[in-house]
Formats: sequence, structure tokens, C-alpha cells
Amino acid sequence: MNPDFSNNRICQLLGISYPIIQAGMIWASGWRLASAVSNSGGLGILGAGSMYPEVLREQIQKCKQATDKPFAVNLPLLYVEIEKHIEIILEHKVPIVFTSAGSPRTWTARLQEKGIKVIHVVSSAAFAQKAEAAGCDAIVAEGYEAGGHNGREQTTTMVLVPQVVGAVSIPVIAAGGIATGQQMLAAMALGASGVQIGTRFLASEESSAHPDFKKMVIESNEGDTQLVMHKLVPVRLLKNDFYRRIEAAESRGATAEELKEILGRARAKKGMFEGDLREGELEIGQVASLLDDILPAATIVRNLLHDYASRLHILQQGL
Amino acid sequence: MNPDFSNNRICQLLGISYPIIQAGMIWASGWRLASAVSNSGGLGILGAGSMYPEVLREQIQKCKQATDKPFAVNLPLLYVEIEKHIEIILEHKVPIVFTSAGSPRTWTARLQEKGIKVIHVVSSAAFAQKAEAAGCDAIVAEGYEAGGHNGREQTTTMVLVPQVVGAVSIPVIAAGGIATGQQMLAAMALGASGVQIGTRFLASEESSAHPDFKKMVIESNEGDTQLVMHKLVPVRLLKNDFYRRIEAAESRGATAEELKEILGRARAKKGMFEGDLREGELEIGQVASLLDDILPAATIVRNLLHDYASRLHILQQGL
Repeated sequence: MNPDFSNNRICQLLGISYPIIQAGMIWASGWRLASAVSNSGGLGILGAGSMYPEVLREQIQKCKQATDKPFAVNLPLLYVEIEKHIEIILEHKVPIVFTSAGSPRTWTARLQEKGIKVIHVVSSAAFAQKAEAAGCDAIVAEGYEAGGHNGREQTTTMVLVPQVVGAVSIPVIAAGGIATGQQMLAAMALGASGVQIGTRFLASEESSAHPDFKKMVIESNEGDTQLVMHKLVPVRLLKNDFYRRIEAAESRGATAEELKEILGRARAKKGMFEGDLREGELEIGQVASLLDDILPAATIVRNLLHDYASRLHILQQGL
Repeated sequence: MNPDFSNNRICQLLGISYPIIQAGMIWASGWRLASAVSNSGGLGILGAGSMYPEVLREQIQKCKQATDKPFAVNLPLLYVEIEKHIEIILEHKVPIVFTSAGSPRTWTARLQEKGIKVIHVVSSAAFAQKAEAAGCDAIVAEGYEAGGHNGREQTTTMVLVPQVVGAVSIPVIAAGGIATGQQMLAAMALGASGVQIGTRFLASEESSAHPDFKKMVIESNEGDTQLVMHKLVPVRLLKNDFYRRIEAAESRGATAEELKEILGRARAKKGMFEGDLREGELEIGQVASLLDDILPAATIVRNLLHDYASRLHILQQGL
């Protein structure tokens, strides 16, 4: 039997059955994945960061056709065409927006005026307090183990979640290092009211990541991801030729400018969407090492709930 | 009421009431702290890494006078006078030894022949399997957030614990980022059978760390610790003048030799024991940012058990 989350703050806020949120990942989370997660009782998110406005519009329309459950759009606030994205979100009455990489003061009120719930992603308690002050409805606290862009404090989920829970009164969603029901239970033990899961959903049948990238993710082992580009914006990558060039440059003390030059442009698309596993930028979480299969999103949600409930039962028995 | 751990594997293995293990920390954990933790129903550990053989002998004798409960010695296997330490441990029939920083193949059998339980500290599943193959009775899996010396993979507790639990069949003790009952519950949710706690016990009345260092620990904030000395042995330090010199050197690409020169000798003693907060090496876990008081060890154990039980109760209610 699935655990009962009817009193859960995130489920109540977002109108979902289970506090399982699929992270909005560039190049990996379109309408197929988002609608599958929402249809399973969690919350699916479209990753708008890699979408032109017209692509986002089409994705929202398709997602609405595929599910009558709530879904969200993830909006990196530094995106150049952010105004157009916001217009499309308002026009299509997307009920929930996750914002990141920018100030929550700029857009939160305008979205909330239209009845949209706004949830901001942070990697520190200090930023969580700013998001709460800006009126956000909830917080995603994303730890060091998370894939992609990451905070400078390098605070892990184990430490970050209690730190953020102690600093704000709005509900907190834990992210970073969560792929199993046991890890979901751990996050809730830390005080989170829900979990945001990226890597596990990237390795799903419905994700739009390149099949070769998905395969590389599930075949990876411990130590195969690492945080790099500390002098630009820190990002967690799966190790490949490109990673090793960046790592070697950092080791010899390369400047931000030099790193930027090695990085070039459009490498994330090249790696994660086009499947260039050598020269692409492969953003993925540390928890990739625990995965060994590509599953339908509905199975992922079912497994999370099953393993959550059975580990909770074991803890109740005093182990 | 305290949770019932009578079926817990670590409690059964070590003959203790609660699966709470106080980490053996150099310059901080002598007989006062170890006996206080053991008397509270957990397991206290003498940190032999900073003790001359005669000091260790005296500490063991005092610990035995102060408690009739089991206690342990933590033995860094690279220690130069390791043979003498082993002799003293055998002579005084210390019931449990925690080993780290070296191969578990060298000493495990010799200690076990005398009825001593041997538990090895690792930071990866690969090393956990080697420790199991060497016959160790249990494993400490120590994540990236832990204070002091740390693994190269930078795997966090959230990811490391399930990885290690999946790789071995002996019981696993989680370490790194654990200072509260909620974090203890999270560690157990991840599959651990117990927790090893350093930073929280360093900031105790009984720890032998310098009072000024304890004060700096409880006043620290998020982002105030960081892993450095990547080209030597990675170590997590509290930021001070010495840290900033190391950090600046690493940023410009300093070699291992240059780092070794800046490090010099005896800096850990200088900082943690003698209270030189500027020039000392201040080893502490990331979870320091969550602490704001120095407590008696017995209160720390009581709080851990209370908060563990109350968070478990909340999870049972579906939050």
C-alpha cells in the first residue's frame, strides 16, 4: 500500500498525491516525462532552460493534452528570453513555476497575482530566506551531490536540508542525491516536505536525453561525477574527455576566462541531447552511480513509494 | 521514551544500548569524552592518532576507571608507532578497535584473534569491500561532509551509505553530516545500522579540544568549512588564515610539494588543542554550521534519541 501523504504540506500546496517532484532538466525533461510523472501522482516539470519560446509553448500544450493533473515549468531566471517565457506561462495558465539562477524578487509577485505557485531553488539557507522574503510558496534546497549547476558553499543535502528547514517557515523540498525510496525517506527525516529528483528521472524511458547518455549514466560508478568550473559557475559533470580537460586546466590554476574558452558554447546540448559523450558537457548527479536501469517514469514513482514505505516499516521495528 | 534498538546489528555486535558512536578525533577525544559517551549507552572512542604510546596507555586506564561499558580506540594505521599502540590495546584488552587510513589486511586478524572487534573507516564502496574481505566486523562509511581527512571521490553521506550498504553484508555505520536525531534517522533510513558522530561531540563539555576552538565551531555558519589540499590528502577545515593561504595556493595551481611546505608540521595540535585559531589546522565537519551550543555528552546522546524518536513519529503520521 502506498504511504498516505494527504497531510503533507507540499501535496496540499501543489494538489498532488505524492511529494515526488521530477526536476526540470535541460535537454531531458519535455512533455513526455513531465506528463508521465504527473499522471503517476507526482509533479512533472518541463525544463524550459533549453527551450526557445515557441518550443516551450508547444511543450506546454502537449503536456496539457497528456495529463489533467498539475504540472510545472522550470525557469532559469537568467534566461535571455525570460519575458517571453513568462508570457507563455501566463497565457497557458501553467499552475506552478519553479525558478532558479536569479533573484526571486523579480518575477514571483507577477506570477502569484495570476494564481501561480512559485517555488525557488537555492543551495543555502541565506538564499532560502531571501526567497521566503520575496513571497515564494516553497523552497527547493539542492545539495552538493546534485547534477548540473551548484552552490559555492558545497553544502551537502544531509546538512543543507536541516539548515534551510531551520531558517524558513515555508515548506522545503530536498534535492541532490535522491533516487531511491530510502533516500526519499532520509530527506523527509531531515525535515523536508518533499523531494525533487533529477538523475533517476533522466534515466527514464520518457526523458528526452540521448539514449547513449542515459546508458552512460546507468553504467557509471562511484567517483564518476565531480564538481568543476569553480571559478565560473560550479557544475557537476560526468567524467569524459571534456571534463578531463577542464579538470587539468583547474589543476594548473586556469582563470575563469580560460575555463570559459575551453567550455565554448552549446556543449550541454551536444552531450546530453545529441549524444556526443566525449566532447559534450554531461550534467548529472552523484547518485548516478547507484542506478543500473532505465525505467518507465511510472515504475520509478512506484518503486520510490514502495521502498519508502518498507524502509519506514523497518525503522519502526527498531531495525 | 527512548527508541528500542535491541535488535540493532551494531548494538548487538558492540554490546551497547544505542547505535551512537562518538568518533575518535585527534586532540579532542580522550577518556573524559569517551567514558561519558559509553556511560550514556553509546560507544566512546579514544582518538589514538594524536597520542604517544604512553599517553594512550594512561588514557585507556583512565577510561576503564570511568566506565564499565564497552569503549574503543581509533587507530590510524599509518601511525609510526602503530606496533606499540597495538601491544597496549592487546595488553589492556580494549574490546573494540576502529581502524582508518591504511590497509585493513595488516592488523585485523591479529586483533580479532584476541577477541577484539575491528571496524574499518572507508569513503567508498570499493574500500568497503576490501575491508569486508579482510574480515572486518563492520564498516564506517564516511561522507564528503565529514571533518578532517576525506576521500577523493567526494561522495556525500546521502549517496555513499546506500552505495556501501549495497556492496557489503557486514553492518554499516554512517558518518559525515550527522549531529542531530533527524540526521541520525536519515542515516538509518539510508540503510545504516548506526551513526558515527564527530563534530557534535567535539563541541561537548568533555572533549579535550581547546575552548576557543569549540567556541569558533559553534559560531560558524554555512559555507565556513571546505575541503582543501586535494593534491595531498583532502581534508575538511574550518576557514581561517591558514586555510585561506592553502586555498589561494590551490587556486593558482600549487603542487603537492608547495602545499606540504605551507602545511608544515603540528598544525592540527596548534589549532585544535592549543587554540591558535589563525594559524592552526582546524579539522571539523560541515555540520558545524548547525551547532550553537556546547553540551555535556550525556545531553547530546539524550537529544539525539529524543529527536530521532519524535521525527520517526512524525514520518509515521505521513507528515
